[in-house]
Amino acid sequence: MKISHIEHLGIAVKSIEEALPYYENVLGLKCYNIEVVEDQKVKTAFLKVGETKIELLEPTSPDSTIAKFIENKGAGVHHVAFAIEDGVANALAEAETNGIRIIDKAPRLGAEGLQIAFLHPKSTLGVLTELCEH
Amino acid sequence: MKISHIEHLGIAVKSIEEALPYYENVLGLKCYNIEVVEDQKVKTAFLKVGETKIELLEPTSPDSTIAKFIENKGAGVHHVAFAIEDGVANALAEAETNGIRIIDKAPRLGAEGLQIAFLHPKSTLGVLTELCEH
Repeated sequence: MKISHIEHLGIAVKSIEEALPYYENVLGLKCYNIEVVEDQKVKTAFLKVGETKIELLEPTSPDSTIAKFIENKGAGVHHVAFAIEDGVANALAEAETNGIRIIDKAPRLGAEGLQIAFLHPKSTLGVLTELCEH
Repeated sequence: MKISHIEHLGIAVKSIEEALPYYENVLGLKCYNIEVVEDQKVKTAFLKVGETKIELLEPTSPDSTIAKFIENKGAGVHHVAFAIEDGVANALAEAETNGIRIIDKAPRLGAEGLQIAFLHPKSTLGVLTELCEH
């Protein structure tokens, strides 16, 4: 696969409202969008830093995967998303050929209209990895 | 503080030798340097992805902080490093004024000759945060 850059970092937070003052006032970044992704039971806030976005992820329900992540590991970096230049479907097929366990068999629609798919952290040395393209 | 981009992601791995085939053959990134940082008891491998580096961190001793991190949380993202445009010392002072707990009272020399300092994850919503500048 051909990766151009880190598209975003997904960071699990208990509360976006409590997290934003740190990101905006201390780090000096700017939140430009907040959206709720109903089927993921998550509220997301987006900030830009260079070519990468920081995506804060707040669970909207106790059975959200983000809620479970925070329960098990604490708040912190949840996933790393790479921007794919030669197609997510192609990258997925290539990863599978290389013996990587994939979570999404085919690309699906993610936040901000991106085509996305996840690789399983068991195959990626503990880093939940998202592949995405515009 | 003024952040230009994510300088690097520090990722804790049990073994660089075992991790590199994933990063190089599956993700298609290229390792351009491996160095041992004796006082941190860590071996690091650097790969570039867009404007950001991935810094794989392998403990060289069981009492390395990276060994303890892996023991407690498993392999995965260990820290996020931001490139500071207006000086690490300045950024540290500003963070402290904002009530952020800092690990390094003053900038110190890190890998690749960078001036670096860490903010404590208790003050940064669980993300161990490094500030650095060339």
